[in-house]
Amino acid sequence: MNSSIIRYILGSILKTEAALLLLPCIVALIYTEREGLWYLPVAAACFMLGFLMTRRKPKDNVFYLKEGCIATALSWIFLSFFGCLPFCLTGEIPSFTDAMFETISGFTTTGASILSDVEALSHCSLFWRSFTHWIGGMGVLVFLLAIVPLSGGSNINLMRAESPGPSVGKLVPKVKYTARILYLIYLGMTVIEIILLLIGKMPLFDALCTGFGTAGTGGFGIKNDSFASYSPYLQWVVTIFMILFGVNFNAYYLVLFGKIKKALQMEEVRYYLLTIIAAVGIIFLSILGTCTSAFDALTQSAFQVASIITTTGFSTTDFNTWTGTCKVILVLLMFVGACAGSTGGGIKVSRFVILFKTVKKEFTSFIHPKSIKKIQMDDKPVDHETMRTVNVYIITFMVVFVLSVFLVSFDDTDLVTGFTAVAATINNIGPGLEMVGPAANFGFFSNFAKYVLMFDMLAGRLELFPLLLLFHPSIWKDLFAYKKSVRKRK
Amino acid sequence: MNSSIIRYILGSILKTEAALLLLPCIVALIYTEREGLWYLPVAAACFMLGFLMTRRKPKDNVFYLKEGCIATALSWIFLSFFGCLPFCLTGEIPSFTDAMFETISGFTTTGASILSDVEALSHCSLFWRSFTHWIGGMGVLVFLLAIVPLSGGSNINLMRAESPGPSVGKLVPKVKYTARILYLIYLGMTVIEIILLLIGKMPLFDALCTGFGTAGTGGFGIKNDSFASYSPYLQWVVTIFMILFGVNFNAYYLVLFGKIKKALQMEEVRYYLLTIIAAVGIIFLSILGTCTSAFDALTQSAFQVASIITTTGFSTTDFNTWTGTCKVILVLLMFVGACAGSTGGGIKVSRFVILFKTVKKEFTSFIHPKSIKKIQMDDKPVDHETMRTVNVYIITFMVVFVLSVFLVSFDDTDLVTGFTAVAATINNIGPGLEMVGPAANFGFFSNFAKYVLMFDMLAGRLELFPLLLLFHPSIWKDLFAYKKSVRKRK
Repeated sequence: MNSSIIRYILGSILKTEAALLLLPCIVALIYTEREGLWYLPVAAACFMLGFLMTRRKPKDNVFYLKEGCIATALSWIFLSFFGCLPFCLTGEIPSFTDAMFETISGFTTTGASILSDVEALSHCSLFWRSFTHWIGGMGVLVFLLAIVPLSGGSNINLMRAESPGPSVGKLVPKVKYTARILYLIYLGMTVIEIILLLIGKMPLFDALCTGFGTAGTGGFGIKNDSFASYSPYLQWVVTIFMILFGVNFNAYYLVLFGKIKKALQMEEVRYYLLTIIAAVGIIFLSILGTCTSAFDALTQSAFQVASIITTTGFSTTDFNTWTGTCKVILVLLMFVGACAGSTGGGIKVSRFVILFKTVKKEFTSFIHPKSIKKIQMDDKPVDHETMRTVNVYIITFMVVFVLSVFLVSFDDTDLVTGFTAVAATINNIGPGLEMVGPAANFGFFSNFAKYVLMFDMLAGRLELFPLLLLFHPSIWKDLFAYKKSVRKRK
Repeated sequence: MNSSIIRYILGSILKTEAALLLLPCIVALIYTEREGLWYLPVAAACFMLGFLMTRRKPKDNVFYLKEGCIATALSWIFLSFFGCLPFCLTGEIPSFTDAMFETISGFTTTGASILSDVEALSHCSLFWRSFTHWIGGMGVLVFLLAIVPLSGGSNINLMRAESPGPSVGKLVPKVKYTARILYLIYLGMTVIEIILLLIGKMPLFDALCTGFGTAGTGGFGIKNDSFASYSPYLQWVVTIFMILFGVNFNAYYLVLFGKIKKALQMEEVRYYLLTIIAAVGIIFLSILGTCTSAFDALTQSAFQVASIITTTGFSTTDFNTWTGTCKVILVLLMFVGACAGSTGGGIKVSRFVILFKTVKKEFTSFIHPKSIKKIQMDDKPVDHETMRTVNVYIITFMVVFVLSVFLVSFDDTDLVTGFTAVAATINNIGPGLEMVGPAANFGFFSNFAKYVLMFDMLAGRLELFPLLLLFHPSIWKDLFAYKKSVRKRK
């Protein structure tokens, strides 16, 4: 395995993080906060290490999906490690485990917090915490691909490892330009949302943090009551933008180039919107009696459904107190997740569409054994390989999920808490139900359970395989063997 | 579709049930109970209808898996309908819905009850209730195949539709003899258990009912505290026989013919036993502190694990009060279920073994893309068709499961109750957790929820497809079209 290219990528990631760590310093300058000082040494250390790792360019630029996966998994772990240091150093989150939990939760756009009093954080730390969502949303390696000239034609393997969904396509022939287009759409939409929030008289700092959280479908709030105290206008802006960021970005690309009709025909997007409408409808009817007005019920149900299906995790109300039917719907939406190729998490709508079509096809061929029908998606046949990986993905997901619920159960919480804590982290949502509901936090878990949940957050964001590969002994043997062989060649 | 053969099979089933309905009459004679009188008119009605339906022999004996599935699904519904009438007529379960629930729960070997006071039932009704387990355990169509001379070589399709597991094999070339061997093993083991229970000084009536419940992996108790008041010896006898009835019956066939080594090499049986040992070990350690002695803890954990994994559903203690880890393990075991080709329910161990092997193979081929490895089971390659049906089965199972949880949630119970009520019925176990825990019953559910759960019990026992086929409009069109074409030919 080509370990020198992995080293080089890791180094580049660290240099990028060093630059990004300067942003909270600027915030600290504006608010004249002392905590900002701690971001400087971390940025310096990050840069130094990154500099050392990228000093020698790799001779061999070729790498495969395997290398892409390993580079991605290690990048995210490195990112989170350095990203959490400021929280520890400022003393705002004294425990390293807690700081790591909060940072992984940020980068993976989960939004699960261990903090009971968010408002006590300094502005620069609040900013960094929300900004990790924005970095993690579109993916840090995609960012790297957009700005760093990585030569070689195998960059698509990096993008494939980091991008969510059963199949990743290039928008344009060059990976570099695909990455740039994606980031431009991402940036543009974030800016529009922030402007709309400012029009609704939200303070600039709040608008920035909310924008980052919505765009990355993260969910860290900067208020203790998440989103409940904002005006209905602001809640609707966020609702609409959550739904928009959960759409497959390919649709926006098509819209940008005038192919609006083609964008509207995307099956995944249509099923995604239908699911949202159905869920909002049922919850609206269910909570109508307990709300002050029909408009209030619609606002609350739309906000909550959008927040959960896109795996953002903001909340305007404590849905823990809703009826059983509403809770079942929300738990189901947790697993459905957003569209592939969006910034959202979960299992992804397209995977479910493929699954349902498989089952339907099986029934048809059972009743009419002679019928030969291929499964189609967007009028194109779904190849056998994609169907197989979807199946394997779902099965692996279940295995990781069940194992996590089992490990977390050592904490002896009630079943709903354990189950939804894992569901909320592996699907990168944030709040679950009961003791991890929207009005609560993850602080009470043991360190062991926290590490399990951190693993789940990373596994969910990177779609299992890259992270699970790290646990395969032959990978480490391969990395080691490569170094030896290089030394020998010298 | 050949609807006349379906009619003929249904008629034969009804005649068989009429004969079986005479057994509770005998019990009523012994205990001089008036309730027994009501079993006679039901048996007579059953026989009359059966007689009318089998008067004309079908001209065309050929039928395919589709006909087998439809015949099986309809048979089980007819069986349950007539089986529940005595409960209504005696007034012991006045509501028809409740009586239907109890009878379906019996035939499907679920053991979920709506009765809060079991001991109030007459002996003949208690006997019939437990006897339905024994009939349903090995399958009523298998019984039919064993005794009724159904000509034509396509009988295997009836067996295939009713027998649990991803692939059904004939033990001997003739289906009739396969069915007979299975029933002989089944009967022999039941008799041995009853004798062992009698040696432990259990009253004959209790021993019979317990034997039926264990053999069919049913779970209806005849005491309000299920099994808690019996001696440890009796508890251990039942524990061991529950585990034995959860083993693939092919293993016993091999043992009978001296191929003990081959029986021990069956992968499914090995994984099944390993799972039991692991689960008992963890639960034993977890409840050790709260039990009076280590032996007591071992008895309780072994009994409960055996009861849940084989989907029997007897209980010696209220495991609702156990720790979170124990409950998670029990919920997981609910889904694992027993071996294929046993009388137990659940998803079946062999399906999970195939799934795990698929995932393992995917990882290997990801790391070593050039490796070509076929998945093997018992040293034989698993064919592609089996793997595909396993995948489809699991996905369909999830869809039915999720939909049921959603529909049951209209009752607004807590999530654990709704979730485990569906899990306990679709996997044919019996008790769940919280409000449907071992110390509670299913009586409080609305009629709507009860019908959903009845559907789940049947769907679980018949492994989804036969029952789901009934909901496909083209099936009814086919049945109707056949009748028309027959009339035209005349």
